Formats: sequence, C-alpha cells, structure tokens
Amino acid sequence: MTNDSLPFEKPPAEKKALEESTTLTPRFDANGLLPVVATDAKSGQVLMLGYMNDLALSQTIKTSEAHYWSRSRQELWHKGATSGNVQKVVQILTDCDQDAIVLRVEMTGAEATCHTGRVSCFYREIPLAEDTARLVEIDGERHFDPEEVYGSK
Amino acid sequence: MTNDSLPFEKPPAEKKALEESTTLTPRFDANGLLPVVATDAKSGQVLMLGYMNDLALSQTIKTSEAHYWSRSRQELWHKGATSGNVQKVVQILTDCDQDAIVLRVEMTGAEATCHTGRVSCFYREIPLAEDTARLVEIDGERHFDPEEVYGSK
Repeated sequence: MTNDSLPFEKPPAEKKALEESTTLTPRFDANGLLPVVATDAKSGQVLMLGYMNDLALSQTIKTSEAHYWSRSRQELWHKGATSGNVQKVVQILTDCDQDAIVLRVEMTGAEATCHTGRVSCFYREIPLAEDTARLVEIDGERHFDPEEVYGSK
Repeated sequence: MTNDSLPFEKPPAEKKALEESTTLTPRFDANGLLPVVATDAKSGQVLMLGYMNDLALSQTIKTSEAHYWSRSRQELWHKGATSGNVQKVVQILTDCDQDAIVLRVEMTGAEATCHTGRVSCFYREIPLAEDTARLVEIDGERHFDPEEVYGSK
C-alpha cells in the first residue's frame, strides 16, 4: 500500500523556503502524521480534526475524497466507507510551515461527520471567563443512529 | 506558573462518558498537548493550527484571549504579545473524544494571524486530482511587515 504514496520531497532546511515555496514538502511528526482540520465548504463550520500519514494525504489528493490515518485502528481510513458519509474534498490547504492540513469538504449521505450522529464533532462549548472548566452541549441533534450504522457503538 | 492551571479531571475510561459528559476532561497527548484550530468568528476561515498544554488552555478559558504552547520555544505563548495581533476568543469548543480544541476568535491589531503577515497561515492550496503534489499560493497579501514586527524574521 505504501507504494501508492506520492513521492513527497524532504522539507528544506531554510524556513523561508518552506513558507514561500510552491513545492509541497509536508512535515510529518515523529509518528509520520499531520493534523487535519475538515471544514464544511458551504458554512465554514469545523467538522472534525483527524490525522493523515503520507498515504492518506496522497489518496486524498488523488481521489478528492477525504482519507485519514486511524490512530486507534492503525490503518488507512477512507472516511464514510462504513457510514456512507463520504467527504468530497473541494479544496486542500497547507499552512506556513507545512505541518497541518485544512480540507474544505462537502458531506454526503446523512450530511453528518461525527460518529455520534452529529454534524460536527465539536458539539460542546467550554464557557469562557470562568474559574472552573465545564462543557455545555450546543448541538444534540443526531442525523443518523450510530447503533444502526456502526453496530455496537 | 503551572499553579495557574485549572484542576482538570482525568478522562473517564468509558467512551460514552467522554462523549456525552458535561465535565471537561481534556485528553492531552504524550507531550501534554492538544491541537487547537483557530477560526475567524466572523467569516469562519481557518486561521491557524496551534497547540495548548493545560496552562495555555486554562489561561485561554480564564482571560478570553488565545494562549498557546510554543513547541519551538517551549514556553507559554500569549498570541499577539509581540505583534499586537491578540486573538479575542468568542467561543471555545471541544470534540467528541476531547482531544482537540476549536477557538472562534476576533483578530485585533493588523487583523492578521500568520507571522508572514497574511490573514491565515493556510495561504497555499494543494491542487486536487493530480498525480503530483504541488502548492499554489491563494493569498499573498501582507497585512503587516514581518521584519518590522519581529525583527530579523
């Protein structure tokens, strides 16, 4: 499978080259991963934060469908392969030091991203200007039944 | 300084508790960090991806100004302390498994986030459906002069 990865070049030593270059030289971390933010191409809402290795990034570029690296299962994860909620990628961006990725996506299927059935994984808020830390749910709506889609979850 | 951290409780063993709880139990990684996505509260644009340790998260909750942990300098980083481009936090969110943070912010000062002077650190696109990986600049506008603000950068 790793043969399917694009031949990414090594990052340049010079910071300015990394920042202003038109060569993609992703700076994978010690585990070979990059953090990836998926946002709704229409609303701009942040949907999830996942990770990509070289293969997941390559497959995403080549197919225009979001692929991640599942850290829990240690395998390539074609998002939506089980649930039907594939993410069609409209745009991929990288940042100044090329160690993070943004995907602007169109959701398909139930138009939900989170495995709990919610549109976004970010469905709880931490109230500001407090001396304690707590969570408040801001979206409880399930767009699919997780038990039906994933079995025992 | 670590005395300034809020007393975060340990994450529960049970996944459902983590996902549906109203107790914030951040799941810091092996380095004590969480990835943090900052977005423009007005436009929804993703501005940067940074990291927080327990202290940075606590200071952000308490002061409503974005604090990160600088991995390169290994110190607490009050964003904008040098450049004047403080991020006023409108909303903090966490995700289903509490290992990532979203900040919705209002930019101040030059209303730019990236140290290169651009609004967002994500100013380059990776063209889709190609067999090679390259970068195309989508925003070259500098809102401040990095050399003037940071000296030798």
